[in-house]
Amino acid sequence: MKLRFTKMHGLGNDFVVLDGVSQSLRLSTEQLRQIGDRHFGIGCDQILLVENPHHPDADFRYRIFNGADGGEVEQCGNGSRCFVRFVHDKGLTRKRAIRVETAKGLITPQLEDNGLITVDMGAPRFAPAEIPFVAEAEAISHPIVVNGRTLAITVVSMGNPHAVQVVEDVENAPVATDGPAIEAHPLFPQKVNAGFMQILSRGEIRLRVFERSAGETLACGTGACAAVVAGIRRGLLDASVLVHTRGGDLRVSWAGPGQPVLMTGPAVTVFEGEIEL
Amino acid sequence: MKLRFTKMHGLGNDFVVLDGVSQSLRLSTEQLRQIGDRHFGIGCDQILLVENPHHPDADFRYRIFNGADGGEVEQCGNGSRCFVRFVHDKGLTRKRAIRVETAKGLITPQLEDNGLITVDMGAPRFAPAEIPFVAEAEAISHPIVVNGRTLAITVVSMGNPHAVQVVEDVENAPVATDGPAIEAHPLFPQKVNAGFMQILSRGEIRLRVFERSAGETLACGTGACAAVVAGIRRGLLDASVLVHTRGGDLRVSWAGPGQPVLMTGPAVTVFEGEIEL
Repeated sequence: MKLRFTKMHGLGNDFVVLDGVSQSLRLSTEQLRQIGDRHFGIGCDQILLVENPHHPDADFRYRIFNGADGGEVEQCGNGSRCFVRFVHDKGLTRKRAIRVETAKGLITPQLEDNGLITVDMGAPRFAPAEIPFVAEAEAISHPIVVNGRTLAITVVSMGNPHAVQVVEDVENAPVATDGPAIEAHPLFPQKVNAGFMQILSRGEIRLRVFERSAGETLACGTGACAAVVAGIRRGLLDASVLVHTRGGDLRVSWAGPGQPVLMTGPAVTVFEGEIEL
Repeated sequence: MKLRFTKMHGLGNDFVVLDGVSQSLRLSTEQLRQIGDRHFGIGCDQILLVENPHHPDADFRYRIFNGADGGEVEQCGNGSRCFVRFVHDKGLTRKRAIRVETAKGLITPQLEDNGLITVDMGAPRFAPAEIPFVAEAEAISHPIVVNGRTLAITVVSMGNPHAVQVVEDVENAPVATDGPAIEAHPLFPQKVNAGFMQILSRGEIRLRVFERSAGETLACGTGACAAVVAGIRRGLLDASVLVHTRGGDLRVSWAGPGQPVLMTGPAVTVFEGEIEL
């Protein structure tokens, strides 16, 4: 089978995007794994498959698969930005607010006038049971002991669990050593993503994230949302914040408890290709 | 600039191959680095640029650049196999023995009837000064102390230095711990590639190589040659040996001291693409 594909990235989180609208695609786990392999295949963090919707109110449906093992994964902020850029570039729609069915329900990412894309990342959750986190109450500045030192973390779920701390200098923060220790801390029964945030002003932070099962990544969309929400809850940040990550910049806005987090950032098409599977 | 490219691999050592024969290509180091980047670009170990020759006896010329930093590197067995497959597939030649100018001089890789490609890897060198290796005489089974244990190594240059040892069970060999210790051993002033060879029969080995500055790789062409030469010099192997690596199989043949080493293996085209640089 000859397969046309587009290689894209959102802040270095990279995707092979497949048009399952103009063509019918049925890919096996083995084929997905081959696509994802960086030496023997195309290579990507995830594969994004764009399809016609099942839901009557949706414009499209998409599914995301891990490049490493071909397994289906949940919603992803970087992926939904690439999705919007893709359906526009391919002429599959002219709408700027696109209703799309994902594994986690309907979302409506929006193409902005400046070419950036805004995604509704859902409302943050603080209830310990929803994270999950072993505690009696919300943890806005909660002490935990990591590698012999006591840190203050904010614990929040953006669909996945995050433990965010404020550091003086993010470049020299002990991400490689404290990251795994926080990730595996017994207070988090399903592990946790560890965020390290340096506050530059009330509207600007630098961020590094040690991702659960993945290690430090170039840019973690839910991690950026979690960090800004944590900073707002601690009274350190305003409602709209520019987040500098190693992969590039995101803007994250949050109006407060119960409200959704909006994340705005770029999506870049790198190249077009054709592979025989 | 719109650039067409072919993505290929030889045993998992992967290349972006560019046709500089049909089109004139001048790429900056920055552009080469962008091509090599696995998240923001195409992604590859090396970029192989095929050009018209300068030398009157050559059919082609090629140059190889590191994907990581865009720097030009030396001859590479996996790369020359991909080169042969590429010029045939693109219809740039019908010759089966192709004379090609490389950074290390003229070579003549050959397309075999079974589709595999044979490359003359040059004659191995054993003189300590040529490796370089701090010793009085050739080291065919030379004791060195690594991590508190005494190992017997064969020291040989295939254009780059190799220290090869025989192990009982290559899957459980201490490649990750002994590899770096051998690489940095003070007897090797320019460091060394560390080979771990399990002998299955006089005509078949399993091999893992800890590469200088790179760590363990899927398949090291010069490492396969060095291992077979070492086994032949120790009287353990016949003149033609099948080498199993983690990336796939190679056949290595050597008629003895002063003779060139011939290496035969596959080259695979993965996909075709087009990128805007």
